[in-house]
Amino acid sequence: MTALAEEIARTYGTPAVVIDLDKVEANIARLQAACDAAGIANRPHIKTHKSPELARLQREAGARGITCQKLGEAEVMADGGLDDILISYNILGEEKLGRLGALQRRVRMIVAADNPVTISGLPRAAEIAGRNLEVVVECDTGRQRAGVETPTEAVELARLIAGSPGLTFAGFLMYPPEDGWERTQRFLDAANAGLRDAGLEAGMISTGGSPNIPNIGKLKGSTEHRAGTSIFNDRMQVAAGVATLDDCALSVYATVVSRAGPERGILDSGSKTLTSDTGGLEGHGYILEYPAAKIAKFAEEHGFLDLSASNDRPKVGEVVRIIPNHVCVVVNMVDRLITVRGDKLVGELPVAARGKLT
Amino acid sequence: MTALAEEIARTYGTPAVVIDLDKVEANIARLQAACDAAGIANRPHIKTHKSPELARLQREAGARGITCQKLGEAEVMADGGLDDILISYNILGEEKLGRLGALQRRVRMIVAADNPVTISGLPRAAEIAGRNLEVVVECDTGRQRAGVETPTEAVELARLIAGSPGLTFAGFLMYPPEDGWERTQRFLDAANAGLRDAGLEAGMISTGGSPNIPNIGKLKGSTEHRAGTSIFNDRMQVAAGVATLDDCALSVYATVVSRAGPERGILDSGSKTLTSDTGGLEGHGYILEYPAAKIAKFAEEHGFLDLSASNDRPKVGEVVRIIPNHVCVVVNMVDRLITVRGDKLVGELPVAARGKLT
Repeated sequence: MTALAEEIARTYGTPAVVIDLDKVEANIARLQAACDAAGIANRPHIKTHKSPELARLQREAGARGITCQKLGEAEVMADGGLDDILISYNILGEEKLGRLGALQRRVRMIVAADNPVTISGLPRAAEIAGRNLEVVVECDTGRQRAGVETPTEAVELARLIAGSPGLTFAGFLMYPPEDGWERTQRFLDAANAGLRDAGLEAGMISTGGSPNIPNIGKLKGSTEHRAGTSIFNDRMQVAAGVATLDDCALSVYATVVSRAGPERGILDSGSKTLTSDTGGLEGHGYILEYPAAKIAKFAEEHGFLDLSASNDRPKVGEVVRIIPNHVCVVVNMVDRLITVRGDKLVGELPVAARGKLT
Repeated sequence: MTALAEEIARTYGTPAVVIDLDKVEANIARLQAACDAAGIANRPHIKTHKSPELARLQREAGARGITCQKLGEAEVMADGGLDDILISYNILGEEKLGRLGALQRRVRMIVAADNPVTISGLPRAAEIAGRNLEVVVECDTGRQRAGVETPTEAVELARLIAGSPGLTFAGFLMYPPEDGWERTQRFLDAANAGLRDAGLEAGMISTGGSPNIPNIGKLKGSTEHRAGTSIFNDRMQVAAGVATLDDCALSVYATVVSRAGPERGILDSGSKTLTSDTGGLEGHGYILEYPAAKIAKFAEEHGFLDLSASNDRPKVGEVVRIIPNHVCVVVNMVDRLITVRGDKLVGELPVAARGKLT
């Protein structure tokens, strides 16, 4: 148990969600460098950190703008001085269209759409804003989440946007599977050909994903990339081979509160802290001090340690550090992050856009 | 799509986490009646609702006190007028012991312990409080989470508590597996025999769990029961046979934002709303309007609908209601619950103890 762990436990109690600002800055710089090397604009996704302060650091490092998933996140970011915001999500319903219009009055907003119903609502936002709203068509190039499935549909929606009052067709947005970049290229080439026939042009071609950082620029014609997780990294990023444990800027400091059996223990961090997002990995996090210990399952406030494979075993009262499987959802559990630099405690950073469900 | 769903979407946007106060009151009354019928005190666990208002409703219905899992929850509850609080958790570390002492100055606090390290710290809290602190020994009767594994250890810890300055041995706390009540009885009888030899007595024997509501009072000697989830219920409670869908007081109103393929769709509620707690069930929630639709997986803000088994399929823009698998973790994602009575919108209820990790 390090002096820093003792200080954090004494000052804040555990569980404490802690970020190392040195590593955060290095991660920000690494993403920016990857974009710069490819000649692609950087538009990081703030879903991971939900902090206007960190978004401003990303902008200062060279990011063109930011990406949000929710309007509520964009509102917090606009309040924090960010003025070029892509929402990579279908915005639907009168309540949201009103808020989108109000945002677009203040800052540059770009939104995604993958269907005519979404597009049919967006002119209302533009009307409230009093100026045109940029809309990109979300394309599914293999991940089967949102996004039109064919280039033909993409071009149809582009025409629909271009023909709608107050809307500007801005381009295409995709989140290619890590092994799906050739397919994505074929999709984009076909869609661009269709656009030319329609007399349109895609000014923005936005790719996404932290696991795709090694692929930035591979898509000919791409103009921007959206990566979120890489600002902190996590066990999934390490498993994907795009980060090392040392690149993981966030850890959860947890206390061992029970050792009722020789081969088991309880951490004070359960699914209400680390969340049940497994990311497809075995165990619910990597314990830096006890790498052979497994966080085998969760109750809400209990992390169940399986110590059978660990010769070294923690005592009750000991504070350990956990690299979570999926960092984005862990940040979303807390109202503040504790900040450190190396072995020095710095302070706190509010997670200002936490819990902005809408 | 009901008029209420339209009103909620228009007023709050989606996702919206909504509770029906009529059902909440009926669920509170049902738990109290089960405790009354067994002659057992009701000490509901507030981890599910995290609301002092709802805790006061539980007290008004007859609850003796409340149970919390975290000190931060207890602080919010004490601020809200609750004055008899059990923390069913090992409290460790100087920061927490200071807060526990401050709480114990204001209200009756009882805490659990399952090891000597925890017990060795607690006198510090009593010293700060200026009066004795009641401590119960947590016993593991088959669930393999926290709790001593044998009656002998339970009695040893009882002696240790009784011999510690400022501490009062208050009894035993257990969370019996639903099928483990005979084993729990044997454990308790042996522990009580040991206590008698030590000249001690267990004033409080506390059992727990909403799935155990049908078992309340089965343990001879039990004095209290702690149930949390039953105030709202969820798909796990329905699967356990202790609630019906109609008893589920909380639902998540979500909008269908994409229908990119004929057999699939996207809800605006992913793991940052419904959480990845599966509760061991297939699918991530039950959609009241489309019971054959499956919420097959999540991204953070996407709920992936598999509609292949559903003849009836929702359109983009439609609002649906989801009964979550595990309600306690869903409440913990939001700062407020929307309240309704039947088909009438009532207002909002803050989730005041949300995110109290420590």
